[in-house]
Amino acid sequence: MEKKLLDYEVGAGVDLFLLIKSSTKGIASNGKPFLSLVLQDKSGELEAKLWDVSDNDEANYAAQQIVHIVGDIQNYRGRKQLKIRQIRQAVPVDNVKPGDFMETAPIDKDEIANEIMQFIFKMKNANLVRITRSLLKKYQDRFYDYPAAVRHHHEFVSGLSFHVISMLRLAKAIADLYPTVDRDLLYAGVILHDMGKVIELSGPVSATYTLEGNLIGHISIVVEEVSKMAEELQIDGEEVVVLKHVLLAHHGKGEWGSPKPPLVREAEILHQIDLMDATMNMMDKALRHTKPGEFSERVFGLDNRSFYRPNFDQE
Amino acid sequence: MEKKLLDYEVGAGVDLFLLIKSSTKGIASNGKPFLSLVLQDKSGELEAKLWDVSDNDEANYAAQQIVHIVGDIQNYRGRKQLKIRQIRQAVPVDNVKPGDFMETAPIDKDEIANEIMQFIFKMKNANLVRITRSLLKKYQDRFYDYPAAVRHHHEFVSGLSFHVISMLRLAKAIADLYPTVDRDLLYAGVILHDMGKVIELSGPVSATYTLEGNLIGHISIVVEEVSKMAEELQIDGEEVVVLKHVLLAHHGKGEWGSPKPPLVREAEILHQIDLMDATMNMMDKALRHTKPGEFSERVFGLDNRSFYRPNFDQE
Amino acid sequence: MEKKLLDYEVGAGVDLFLLIKSSTKGIASNGKPFLSLVLQDKSGELEAKLWDVSDNDEANYAAQQIVHIVGDIQNYRGRKQLKIRQIRQAVPVDNVKPGDFMETAPIDKDEIANEIMQFIFKMKNANLVRITRSLLKKYQDRFYDYPAAVRHHHEFVSGLSFHVISMLRLAKAIADLYPTVDRDLLYAGVILHDMGKVIELSGPVSATYTLEGNLIGHISIVVEEVSKMAEELQIDGEEVVVLKHVLLAHHGKGEWGSPKPPLVREAEILHQIDLMDATMNMMDKALRHTKPGEFSERVFGLDNRSFYRPNFDQE
Amino acid sequence: MEKKLLDYEVGAGVDLFLLIKSSTKGIASNGKPFLSLVLQDKSGELEAKLWDVSDNDEANYAAQQIVHIVGDIQNYRGRKQLKIRQIRQAVPVDNVKPGDFMETAPIDKDEIANEIMQFIFKMKNANLVRITRSLLKKYQDRFYDYPAAVRHHHEFVSGLSFHVISMLRLAKAIADLYPTVDRDLLYAGVILHDMGKVIELSGPVSATYTLEGNLIGHISIVVEEVSKMAEELQIDGEEVVVLKHVLLAHHGKGEWGSPKPPLVREAEILHQIDLMDATMNMMDKALRHTKPGEFSERVFGLDNRSFYRPNFDQE
Amino acid sequence: MEKKLLDYEVGAGVDLFLLIKSSTKGIASNGKPFLSLVLQDKSGELEAKLWDVSDNDEANYAAQQIVHIVGDIQNYRGRKQLKIRQIRQAVPVDNVKPGDFMETAPIDKDEIANEIMQFIFKMKNANLVRITRSLLKKYQDRFYDYPAAVRHHHEFVSGLSFHVISMLRLAKAIADLYPTVDRDLLYAGVILHDMGKVIELSGPVSATYTLEGNLIGHISIVVEEVSKMAEELQIDGEEVVVLKHVLLAHHGKGEWGSPKPPLVREAEILHQIDLMDATMNMMDKALRHTKPGEFSERVFGLDNRSFYRPNFDQE
Amino acid sequence: MEKKLLDYEVGAGVDLFLLIKSSTKGIASNGKPFLSLVLQDKSGELEAKLWDVSDNDEANYAAQQIVHIVGDIQNYRGRKQLKIRQIRQAVPVDNVKPGDFMETAPIDKDEIANEIMQFIFKMKNANLVRITRSLLKKYQDRFYDYPAAVRHHHEFVSGLSFHVISMLRLAKAIADLYPTVDRDLLYAGVILHDMGKVIELSGPVSATYTLEGNLIGHISIVVEEVSKMAEELQIDGEEVVVLKHVLLAHHGKGEWGSPKPPLVREAEILHQIDLMDATMNMMDKALRHTKPGEFSERVFGLDNRSFYRPNFDQE
Repeated sequence: MEKKLLDYEVGAGVDLFLLIKSSTKGIASNGKPFLSLVLQDKSGELEAKLWDVSDNDEANYAAQQIVHIVGDIQNYRGRKQLKIRQIRQAVPVDNVKPGDFMETAPIDKDEIANEIMQFIFKMKNANLVRITRSLLKKYQDRFYDYPAAVRHHHEFVSGLSFHVISMLRLAKAIADLYPTVDRDLLYAGVILHDMGKVIELSGPVSATYTLEGNLIGHISIVVEEVSKMAEELQIDGEEVVVLKHVLLAHHGKGEWGSPKPPLVREAEILHQIDLMDATMNMMDKALRHTKPGEFSERVFGLDNRSFYRPNFDQE
Repeated sequence: MEKKLLDYEVGAGVDLFLLIKSSTKGIASNGKPFLSLVLQDKSGELEAKLWDVSDNDEANYAAQQIVHIVGDIQNYRGRKQLKIRQIRQAVPVDNVKPGDFMETAPIDKDEIANEIMQFIFKMKNANLVRITRSLLKKYQDRFYDYPAAVRHHHEFVSGLSFHVISMLRLAKAIADLYPTVDRDLLYAGVILHDMGKVIELSGPVSATYTLEGNLIGHISIVVEEVSKMAEELQIDGEEVVVLKHVLLAHHGKGEWGSPKPPLVREAEILHQIDLMDATMNMMDKALRHTKPGEFSERVFGLDNRSFYRPNFDQE
Repeated sequence: MEKKLLDYEVGAGVDLFLLIKSSTKGIASNGKPFLSLVLQDKSGELEAKLWDVSDNDEANYAAQQIVHIVGDIQNYRGRKQLKIRQIRQAVPVDNVKPGDFMETAPIDKDEIANEIMQFIFKMKNANLVRITRSLLKKYQDRFYDYPAAVRHHHEFVSGLSFHVISMLRLAKAIADLYPTVDRDLLYAGVILHDMGKVIELSGPVSATYTLEGNLIGHISIVVEEVSKMAEELQIDGEEVVVLKHVLLAHHGKGEWGSPKPPLVREAEILHQIDLMDATMNMMDKALRHTKPGEFSERVFGLDNRSFYRPNFDQE
Repeated sequence: MEKKLLDYEVGAGVDLFLLIKSSTKGIASNGKPFLSLVLQDKSGELEAKLWDVSDNDEANYAAQQIVHIVGDIQNYRGRKQLKIRQIRQAVPVDNVKPGDFMETAPIDKDEIANEIMQFIFKMKNANLVRITRSLLKKYQDRFYDYPAAVRHHHEFVSGLSFHVISMLRLAKAIADLYPTVDRDLLYAGVILHDMGKVIELSGPVSATYTLEGNLIGHISIVVEEVSKMAEELQIDGEEVVVLKHVLLAHHGKGEWGSPKPPLVREAEILHQIDLMDATMNMMDKALRHTKPGEFSERVFGLDNRSFYRPNFDQE
Repeated sequence: MEKKLLDYEVGAGVDLFLLIKSSTKGIASNGKPFLSLVLQDKSGELEAKLWDVSDNDEANYAAQQIVHIVGDIQNYRGRKQLKIRQIRQAVPVDNVKPGDFMETAPIDKDEIANEIMQFIFKMKNANLVRITRSLLKKYQDRFYDYPAAVRHHHEFVSGLSFHVISMLRLAKAIADLYPTVDRDLLYAGVILHDMGKVIELSGPVSATYTLEGNLIGHISIVVEEVSKMAEELQIDGEEVVVLKHVLLAHHGKGEWGSPKPPLVREAEILHQIDLMDATMNMMDKALRHTKPGEFSERVFGLDNRSFYRPNFDQE
Repeated sequence: MEKKLLDYEVGAGVDLFLLIKSSTKGIASNGKPFLSLVLQDKSGELEAKLWDVSDNDEANYAAQQIVHIVGDIQNYRGRKQLKIRQIRQAVPVDNVKPGDFMETAPIDKDEIANEIMQFIFKMKNANLVRITRSLLKKYQDRFYDYPAAVRHHHEFVSGLSFHVISMLRLAKAIADLYPTVDRDLLYAGVILHDMGKVIELSGPVSATYTLEGNLIGHISIVVEEVSKMAEELQIDGEEVVVLKHVLLAHHGKGEWGSPKPPLVREAEILHQIDLMDATMNMMDKALRHTKPGEFSERVFGLDNRSFYRPNFDQE
């Protein structure tokens, strides 16, 4: 199991355990049912078709099941596809578990939690510290497990907190260069900006939108949370209004979901840092499997652009 | 004092008490200071210049003062202007007070309050009733005095509650015609939709934006208020999420300040009713002083359109 | 025939007469021809495939034919589909006719005609009455049968006049609340606003665009009709110009097909009423088959939004 | 009177008869009235102020009066302005008339009419010829005198017909190069495309919008005219629908006032020719008084661009 | 071989040599591979499927191969498709070559070259002549063979130079009508405007974008070429700056790829001529196979419009 | 001369040497000429009027002159203005020079040059180093003196190189955090991205656009410079194409002046860094003179937003 799914070239044979990410039934033009499977391991995912399936197959090869597959990598309209020769469900003796097949943040979640605490220790404004720390504590179980989004960027276990820690580092670097930045406000903004996702999304894996996610959205959710926590902690200063604004405005524009544009320096910086870290994550993901001298697949979250990896770029 | 400021034609002489709405100092091209006054009574407002003013004048003729003026209505670039011949401050014996000069809603605020209560009595969903009634009670002092906006529409004393009562009547008429509408949700939405204005704006007269108004905005404010009130009343059903959505979405689009578009039937209807009542108010205001066969002044809030009043329209 | 096509859940067997709305030939990947049928009754429509068809089948199962079908409701990519087990053409002894399978307005067209007349009786402006009544008479055959659109809203037999009657009721309710509205102009505008559709569209059923519909459009068509009718009736007052404007402007903006934006009060109101009634119709259609606690299918005509039906909404 | 108003450089003295194009009263900061005059001759127009005016002056120096002025050309914020030293009304013995001061088309209107007739003689489609010729005859008095627009391009006496003749020549050149073009349809479209302006605008000089111009617009006006004329001439073929489309679509897009985009080849060509001739006219006007090596004033009708006149461009 | 591929109606049998433009492998729902072929001759192209292919077939029926096909024209979703009955590779004795099957400009490339030279002979500005002539010479091999675009317009052998010659004729016609146009600058602009395509595109047939094409684009490429050539020829006058601007600006707007909008008269004209010739070419291509009384296929490059061909248009 | 112009509050008297940034003649409503002066020192600039000026005054108080002024700071429409009581030209004995009054980068230009060299020393790609170093050398005189823009951001002496050094530091911080970034390409992009400004702008002080600046623009200028320098140095690898792309794309979008969007990782990063440094500079400038608890003046370059400076922000 050393070599992973996306490491195989077109034409290669594979013999792998894989996790079924999704399984959709269709009806072929000969009238018989088939399954469209999306199969994944930590390297990424591929599509595969299973033809002429029975009701039994449909139950066995459902989402979240682990299967053992023998097959070939084929080229289908310029994308790799997996052709299944043999398939069977994994059994206890195979000794595999779902977590083995899911992408996770490159740092352990305890390490992330620890580093976030280091940032909070450096903050001086007591009001901002108390609100940030209390909300972090209230939602810590979910905060360190959730992804940062359903798709596009940081869409993996612990993606949310990993996105936060990357942004905190960036925030520190920027504050070191531009001395007028209020570090406390910026750090609090970074830590809390996407915390509403723990209510917006359904869970750490195969996340979907909850009813509150669909109807209210993570931006308004976190603003309410700050309001209630400030009330609970009996904090009433201008910091509460300004912090709520920084969170409210972090998508930058009405069209992008922020009911107010950034009107405070740190709100604007938070917006730009958020964009930068998400962009980096999306470009890295797209270029990782692109060969030097070629263009990547199109990246939906970046205006559908296809990025070029130069030949002189020897990673 | 029967005939009001805007009832006079160009060329007419006037002898009136007026309220100074704003007073701005300028420096004339001969190097001497002057005041640009905006003077108003219940019929509306006009500009006037006061030349060669002393420091004393500047203090006497400040905003919110009542003055007695003798002068003429002149035409300046197609708009009426008031030329001042004599000006003096009002004194106690004149027996005039600011309220005499301010536009107010055409219905008395007690009547408005009474009618709103009638609507609430007809609501059946206990959760929605309790939240609506409690918030109305919490902010009743300001709710029945505030304007609905700083300018554009319903920008007068009690404008907010008058806007609400007009919309409730419209909501009822629509619900009578379209039986699938959930009246409770729609009425609650109408009553609360602009309640955040009591925090967004500074007060019932010459309203400006507060810090919370500028940085958070009335939409997010009311959503927080509903959240806290529901928590206080220990209400936790889906009604809370849906009501918050209806309020959040009532501007219809991200560009117009709503972080979510209407995704519930009553949210969409609330948005359309709000637009319709505001449009009616702006068109009425523009056409009130337009003669049959002429075009009104441009209405900023309606894409800067100028409306025609037909000759056969004999009001 | 009590239970209708869309009343069956996935998995259920059906035994129904249905009307073929459209029939498109395709070639399956085994090289044999098949038909994609859209089958309908009054409850709505579903897709079905007929495999391995002969030239005979192609002729028998063409659009506008009635067929008897035994089959099952299946789930295909989250939408219901009909799997055909047996199919045959209807014969005279089956005693079925196309009208049995088509959605129609919920009110009888005579009733609609009668109610429209009641509105006209209330109009006072003789010029507007004569133009409106004469055009209604000229096109009465088609006006009471045509749909209001090819798809999106009121796309059924008598949909056009039903849309008009709903809007007239709304117009009355609004005029009762806002006394400055000119009822005559508004009623005339409502009755005539989509009358150009009787020339723009091909007929009451399976409507397509005529050459005039494609090249001129119903807005310009009705304006010409008013012009010619006014000339014929020797009416020459300002009402003709203003009425033409009201019709011309009822789509609200250039991008939406109106060469002038609404510049008369009633033109703006007509635009908003039209939007409101169309929105209501589209939301009702989308939510009718949506269960409480679920989101509807996306509604193309409403910015592709998917609407939520609350659990507490017990219709 | 050889040298004209715009031929004088800044600093030069002038002694000229000029026509008052507009006269607007203002009140100076010393409280005294003044007049802002726009003065013109065939070379163009300049602004001038007349200080401390009496009621008499206001009457004497109104729009459409001819005056004799002695003054200087000054530079005011980068634009030329005329400083008045002496002013008097023209008297009969001065032997000047308004027409001497107004820009007109560079060709005589009889010549224009003659050339348009030559184009019609070359048309073969009898239906298109009859409609075109009849409408030309019906409105010939105004057609040959009106401007093509209120401002921006061809805003002078006979500007409308001069614009048409320039476009006809362009249409012929294009049809000679692209043989698939239907000349008859294109010529008819060119001749009629702006004929609605004779109803949209108030007259040949100092044109403003009429009520029909404001509420209906020249595009819908000409379409109605074609409809009525076709009916009168009992022409009923497809040519009428297509010709109406060509006229309807000639602004190219909904945002620019066409309810339908060009869907017929000649409609698209007409749109492009119209744009090209208007562009040429606006650029020529802007560059006429620009020196080589300098940028012109900004041209509002061309996205506010300022055009460069190269040094090597020796006209 | 007289009658060509697109001359056959649906239902007709064909027996033709055709060139394979592209060949894409797919996997049918029975799990077997098939090829989607695009087949062409000078009249245009059609799709065809080849089922159950062997590895051998895949090699034999690759892009750029000539094949002999016996089959039928079928209707598939409103478009013609070719059903293959027999297929074989062409052999030497068939005496066919790729050039027989590719669309080319309607004029021979020597004629085009000759006519372009005639235009250059008429130019007077020595600097512009030398730059134009030298660049034309430098790239003449490719310039007279390349297409003007990958798709949309003039996408055939010699399409680039044919597009240039059509534009030169149009430029001449316009300059004859508008005497202020600088012919030398306009002709130089026309000849060079798309010359960067010889570097942007991969070759005269089945052109794709080169790396420079993707990353730099033909506009910036030609500007560099002019810069270097001017330096080589030691030309330093304002003509170089202005010519580069004319080329840089010929797409008209930033959104369309021009970093500067046209700020010189000839730059604007070049932009309009380019648009007009491309539009003509796209409309002609769309209408060529459209019958009178019908609408063409949608034209992607013209806002996805579908054009109507009138019945009275008897080509 | 310790306290500077913008350090004085409204009402204070001033006695300062100031540089005249611009001087515009106007004509007052009493017909007499006056000068509108913009006066500056290192703290910023204020407007002042000089009434009743002679021809002599106009010559003496022209742009770039140093004057000694006694006057008062006044409030004019919410902005500070300087009222002049006494004015005289500076004389040699005053011992003041223009450089004393102009804002400059906060670091000395030798230091900037030195730091940029340190960055180049760290680059490894020989081709990128040679091109960057050679262009820096070619334009060093202007590069270290020019502003980064005419207005909006870094519009001071050495602003261009200061902007570059700030961006290099940011680039380093980002590359330290995201290891996939190609430092060489990013550093080269940062150093060269605005180098075209040395040709686009007229000089280090009171910069205006040159003809090349207006017609070609700094983006296309620097791309040409790289092309020519690569040719001169006989460098031909992919680095040249990619570096040109990175420069070409650094404005991010066609609407913002880049003919290609960023299609290489470092191009996107350069765009975001550029935006971030410019934003920081604009926000700092706006907030520098804003008191805690107040909103700044509107910032044109940041969507006309007005930024709030929190009370808890104790700089």
